[in-house]
Amino acid sequence: MEEKTAYLDNAATTRACPAAVEAAARMMRDCFGNPSSLHAMGAASAREMAAAREAVAALLGCQAECVTFTSGGSEANNLAVFGGAAARARRGKKLVTTAAEHSSVSEAMRRLESEGWEVACVKPGPDGKLDAEAFADAVDERTALVSMMLVNNETGAVFPVAEAAKLIRRKNPETLIHCDGVQAFGKLPLRVSRMEIDLMSVSGHKICGPKGSGALYIRRGVRVLPQICGGGQERGLRSGTENLPAIAGFGAACDALNGKVQQNFARAEALRDRLREQLSEMSGVRLISPADGSPYIVNFSVPGYRSETMLHFLESRGVFVSSGSACSKGATSPVLLSMGLPAPVVDGALRASFIYGTSEEELDMLVSALREGIAKVAHK
Amino acid sequence: MEEKTAYLDNAATTRACPAAVEAAARMMRDCFGNPSSLHAMGAASAREMAAAREAVAALLGCQAECVTFTSGGSEANNLAVFGGAAARARRGKKLVTTAAEHSSVSEAMRRLESEGWEVACVKPGPDGKLDAEAFADAVDERTALVSMMLVNNETGAVFPVAEAAKLIRRKNPETLIHCDGVQAFGKLPLRVSRMEIDLMSVSGHKICGPKGSGALYIRRGVRVLPQICGGGQERGLRSGTENLPAIAGFGAACDALNGKVQQNFARAEALRDRLREQLSEMSGVRLISPADGSPYIVNFSVPGYRSETMLHFLESRGVFVSSGSACSKGATSPVLLSMGLPAPVVDGALRASFIYGTSEEELDMLVSALREGIAKVAHK
Repeated sequence: MEEKTAYLDNAATTRACPAAVEAAARMMRDCFGNPSSLHAMGAASAREMAAAREAVAALLGCQAECVTFTSGGSEANNLAVFGGAAARARRGKKLVTTAAEHSSVSEAMRRLESEGWEVACVKPGPDGKLDAEAFADAVDERTALVSMMLVNNETGAVFPVAEAAKLIRRKNPETLIHCDGVQAFGKLPLRVSRMEIDLMSVSGHKICGPKGSGALYIRRGVRVLPQICGGGQERGLRSGTENLPAIAGFGAACDALNGKVQQNFARAEALRDRLREQLSEMSGVRLISPADGSPYIVNFSVPGYRSETMLHFLESRGVFVSSGSACSKGATSPVLLSMGLPAPVVDGALRASFIYGTSEEELDMLVSALREGIAKVAHK
Repeated sequence: MEEKTAYLDNAATTRACPAAVEAAARMMRDCFGNPSSLHAMGAASAREMAAAREAVAALLGCQAECVTFTSGGSEANNLAVFGGAAARARRGKKLVTTAAEHSSVSEAMRRLESEGWEVACVKPGPDGKLDAEAFADAVDERTALVSMMLVNNETGAVFPVAEAAKLIRRKNPETLIHCDGVQAFGKLPLRVSRMEIDLMSVSGHKICGPKGSGALYIRRGVRVLPQICGGGQERGLRSGTENLPAIAGFGAACDALNGKVQQNFARAEALRDRLREQLSEMSGVRLISPADGSPYIVNFSVPGYRSETMLHFLESRGVFVSSGSACSKGATSPVLLSMGLPAPVVDGALRASFIYGTSEEELDMLVSALREGIAKVAHK
């Protein structure tokens, strides 16, 4: 590995920010009481929990009481889909989702399908975008729950969650509306309480918080069935001793972002636009991400070069990107396939993903390593 | 709060040991790649995962491949009960457990009962002990799964898991045998692979590892249905980005214990015996824990004094104990009730729980504060 590196795999996971590491370490060392303990050490931990909940809620744009902590985004997505569907099963056993969801939504849907639920799956277009009306059209009076992500983790495409939610509310006000907000939270300006949705999943480690932290926004009055039962922590919604180090670190990461989302967004846009321009000038490179997607994700393809081969070449130059999402471990992306892209484009796809500290220099390293790779790596 | 404190609530949670804090912080700061990422930073994280898995397996006494990481003991118990029951549902829909299980087992059982399962619940005797034959007697040809804890979290009573398992295997070899090992792991000498059980839950934060870490031992060849679906991490058994900081910290805590369980046990026995002697000499104090239970837990009662009142008095003297388990937030203990103890004994129950670093001085602080409390606190 070269000395200078460009870590451009921030949609997979980020390095925790110093404030998050410090908060987590302080909880492990000093404020280690069980938040459920009745004594003062428990109470001190409970206060830290409350402060972290306020910080997450502020970044989400909602009341603290709407935030339920989980062990991460996947658990939050599962809690929303399984717990929401179970709570509304009497209304009908139909679910509506997109063909581009994260596996923690799509696999949960698949399991419910195997248990007798009907699942309608709406595909994005070749530009990676999703049509709100087509999505809402799939909702009927039997639809218990819908799930649509806000930012696609592979392409960065922004899905019309708010628009679809409005249409769905009109069509069936009883349908629970869930949004996987993992790649949007802390990156796109967001006020979840102003969107007409019931549930939103978020994750800490995608925004420089610790791994093992996440939350589910639950609109006031909405009921979901807990998926981990026991001591009744998180108001009965998520049992198990609260992971205070991760939660406090998550809160610290949110605190560091509160009030800065817009300026970080503008900075990422400038980086993204510059990278897109450089990539579009390279022969043999095709941009996959839509130009108006999340500025933190640039998906592109070098058709004819296997993405894994190119990924390893880039790595030899100190540049870390991803082929597909980390969660799919290099398997062919169902998201890109669902867009109807030609096989060589899908097979050559790479994802560069940014975070607040990403620099122009890192992106230049990517461009120059990619140019070298196209010249040196064996064409498939 | 006084300057000198005696933290005697280690069965609720422990302070993470320096090696665990350091390992967790290092993962957040330096080794932060997603273990599923294909590049070198992912591979580095995957290696840390493997090392932690070896450390946990060594303390459990099993092969590393039998260790599935979870977000903690409660999730591991839920995975065992829900996932095990679902995997064996075709054999019959009966479950057998004890009346003294942790809420993450008993509440999971309650939910399955509401879904049509039959649950047989075997009670411990007034000494807190459980009869292996009575337990095995409840198993029949329709029993899909049994769950019995190894060390009771409130009384420290050691349940005859190995003995019951042998009887159950003879009666119905198809029954899955689960053991909640949370209060035993790292404290009692243990080789899970030599016990005839299929599943054992353990937790990191009870043995000076970080909160948010736990694992389920799954005997080779045993199938449980995953409860969190998605990217297929942990060989499909537990999806979600691996919580490497917690896992590495868990591994470090296990490493610190490997080879020392027996000597720590003997030390805890000496502390426990000394405390029991002091308590038995105090008029008005009744010992609840059996003399041959886990040496890390001493449950006693001051009948006539409400445990919460006494807990707060002790706290004012810098001594932290628990009334019941932290998980029950001070509610009347179903475990003590199930033992058939008189109400004043249950209402006055307090639990002192040790860890490796607990000192005689801390226990002396407890005894002297308790003596003072009995003199000063208003009798109910």
